[in-house]
Amino acid sequence: MKLIKHHKFDIRVYYEDTDAEGIVYHSKYLNFAERARTEFLRKCNLSQSNIEKKYGLIFVVKSLKVDYFNIACLDDFLNVDTSISRLNKAKVVFSQLIYSNTSLTAKLEVIVCCLNKNRKVARMTNQIYDTLKKEERE
Amino acid sequence: MKLIKHHKFDIRVYYEDTDAEGIVYHSKYLNFAERARTEFLRKCNLSQSNIEKKYGLIFVVKSLKVDYFNIACLDDFLNVDTSISRLNKAKVVFSQLIYSNTSLTAKLEVIVCCLNKNRKVARMTNQIYDTLKKEERE
Amino acid sequence: MKLIKHHKFDIRVYYEDTDAEGIVYHSKYLNFAERARTEFLRKCNLSQSNIEKKYGLIFVVKSLKVDYFNIACLDDFLNVDTSISRLNKAKVVFSQLIYSNTSLTAKLEVIVCCLNKNRKVARMTNQIYDTLKKEERE
Amino acid sequence: MKLIKHHKFDIRVYYEDTDAEGIVYHSKYLNFAERARTEFLRKCNLSQSNIEKKYGLIFVVKSLKVDYFNIACLDDFLNVDTSISRLNKAKVVFSQLIYSNTSLTAKLEVIVCCLNKNRKVARMTNQIYDTLKKEERE
Repeated sequence: MKLIKHHKFDIRVYYEDTDAEGIVYHSKYLNFAERARTEFLRKCNLSQSNIEKKYGLIFVVKSLKVDYFNIACLDDFLNVDTSISRLNKAKVVFSQLIYSNTSLTAKLEVIVCCLNKNRKVARMTNQIYDTLKKEERE
Repeated sequence: MKLIKHHKFDIRVYYEDTDAEGIVYHSKYLNFAERARTEFLRKCNLSQSNIEKKYGLIFVVKSLKVDYFNIACLDDFLNVDTSISRLNKAKVVFSQLIYSNTSLTAKLEVIVCCLNKNRKVARMTNQIYDTLKKEERE
Repeated sequence: MKLIKHHKFDIRVYYEDTDAEGIVYHSKYLNFAERARTEFLRKCNLSQSNIEKKYGLIFVVKSLKVDYFNIACLDDFLNVDTSISRLNKAKVVFSQLIYSNTSLTAKLEVIVCCLNKNRKVARMTNQIYDTLKKEERE
Repeated sequence: MKLIKHHKFDIRVYYEDTDAEGIVYHSKYLNFAERARTEFLRKCNLSQSNIEKKYGLIFVVKSLKVDYFNIACLDDFLNVDTSISRLNKAKVVFSQLIYSNTSLTAKLEVIVCCLNKNRKVARMTNQIYDTLKKEERE
C-alpha cells in the first residue's frame, strides 16, 4: 500500500460552523481535524468502526493544543494537512495544519490514545501500531 | 407526585448557538427542545439513562415540525414550554413553545417513539405510559 | 446553464454527528440538509455569501418538517437528494430525501424565505426568482 | 462589586453533547468552557454583546490547550471552575477546570485576545482591563 504521510482533506465552511461574529467558531476546528484524522485512518484501512468491531478498541483524544492564526468565514474552502509526528503503542501524536487558500488558519497538535471496551486506557495492537509506524513523519 | 403539565426550561444563547447572520442557527432549536424534554422526563422520574438501564428502551424522534416566528440572538434568554399533547403506547406527541422574553420565537411538535436494544420500534412499558398519561394536557 | 432539478450531495457520518445511542443525532439531519441546499444554490450561481453582498438578502428557514424512517450510524455514507417542489417570490419549498445506501433514512420539507439587512421579511429579487423558477420540479 | 476569582458554572450533559462511544465528544468541552467564560464576564458586567456595542471589540480565542483526564457521559452533571491566571492589555489567560462530581474531567488553558470591527487584533480598553485585572488570581 502506498504511504500517505501528509494526508490532505478539504472542508467547506457552512452556516452551522460559523458564529455571530461571522467567523468559524473556535471549537469547530477540532471537529474538522477529527474528520481529517478519520479519513487518514480510513485510507490506512483503519476505519474506526472496524477497529472497534475487530479489536474492541477506540481512539480518544488525550490532550490537544490549538493555535489560531487567522479567521475563516462562511463559504471558505479549508484544507487540512494531517501527519503523524510521533507514536508509541500508548499514543499517537497528530500534527494538523488547517489552511484557507494558502494562508495558515490554525495549527493543532492532537494526542490520541486507545481505550478498551471497559473504557480503560489500553495499548494498541501490533497490527495498528505497525500500520501507523510506517506513516510516521521522518 | 405533583403534576407538571407545562414544563418551563430556561436557555441562554451562547456563541456556539449562533451563525454568521448573527442569529440562532435553525437546527439548534431542536437541541434546545430536546434539553427541555429531557428535563421534563427527569422531573417525572424518567431520566433517559435510567430508562435505558432499567427497561432497555430509548426514546427517539420519529417526526417533527418547526415554525419559526422570530429570530433569537447572542445573549438572549429563551424559555421553553413543553407539554404532552397526546400519547399512546407507541408514541408521545410533545408540543413545545420557545419564547424570547414574551415573544414566541419558535413552535415545535415532536413525535417520539421507543426503540429496544436492537434498535427496533417497541411499545413503552406500562409504568412509563402511566406516568406520561397523567401528564397529558386536557 | 444546465438545469439540476435533483441535486445530489454526499455526506460522511463522523463522531460529531452521532450521540450516545450510537446513531446520528436527530438535529444533525437539518445541518446535512442545509449543506445540501447551499451546494444546490452554489451550482445555480447563488452562493449565500454573494447573495448577501450583492442584494443584502439572506435566506432563512421559515418552517420545516422531518420524518425519520431509519437510523444512520458512524461511518455511514449518506446521500441527500434536494429539489424545489414549489416557490413564489416570498418563499421556496425544498424537498429533501436523505438516503443511506439505497434506503430512505429521512425526508424533509424545508420552507425558506428572505430577510433583508434589517432582518425583516423581504421578497427575493427577480434574478434570484427566475433562476430558482427554472429549477422547480415539474 | 464583590470579586469572583473562581467562577463556578454547572452544565448538564445532553444527547447532543455525546458521541457514538457513549462519551462527551472532545470538542464540546470547548463549548462548555466558553459558556462558563461568558457567564464569568457577564458577572463582571462585561457581557460580550455589550462590549461589542460599546467598544466595537470582540474577544476571540488565540490559542488553547486541553488535557482530558476522564470521560463524561449522558446525564452527568459537570461543574466548570474558571479563573484568570494572568492578563495584559493584549490578552487574557483563562484557566478552566471541568469536574464531574469531584473528579477532574478536563483542564483547559484558553488564551483570549481582542479583535476590532475590522477583525484586526486590538488592545482592550482600560475599563475592560481594570475590571479583569482585579479578577486575576494571586
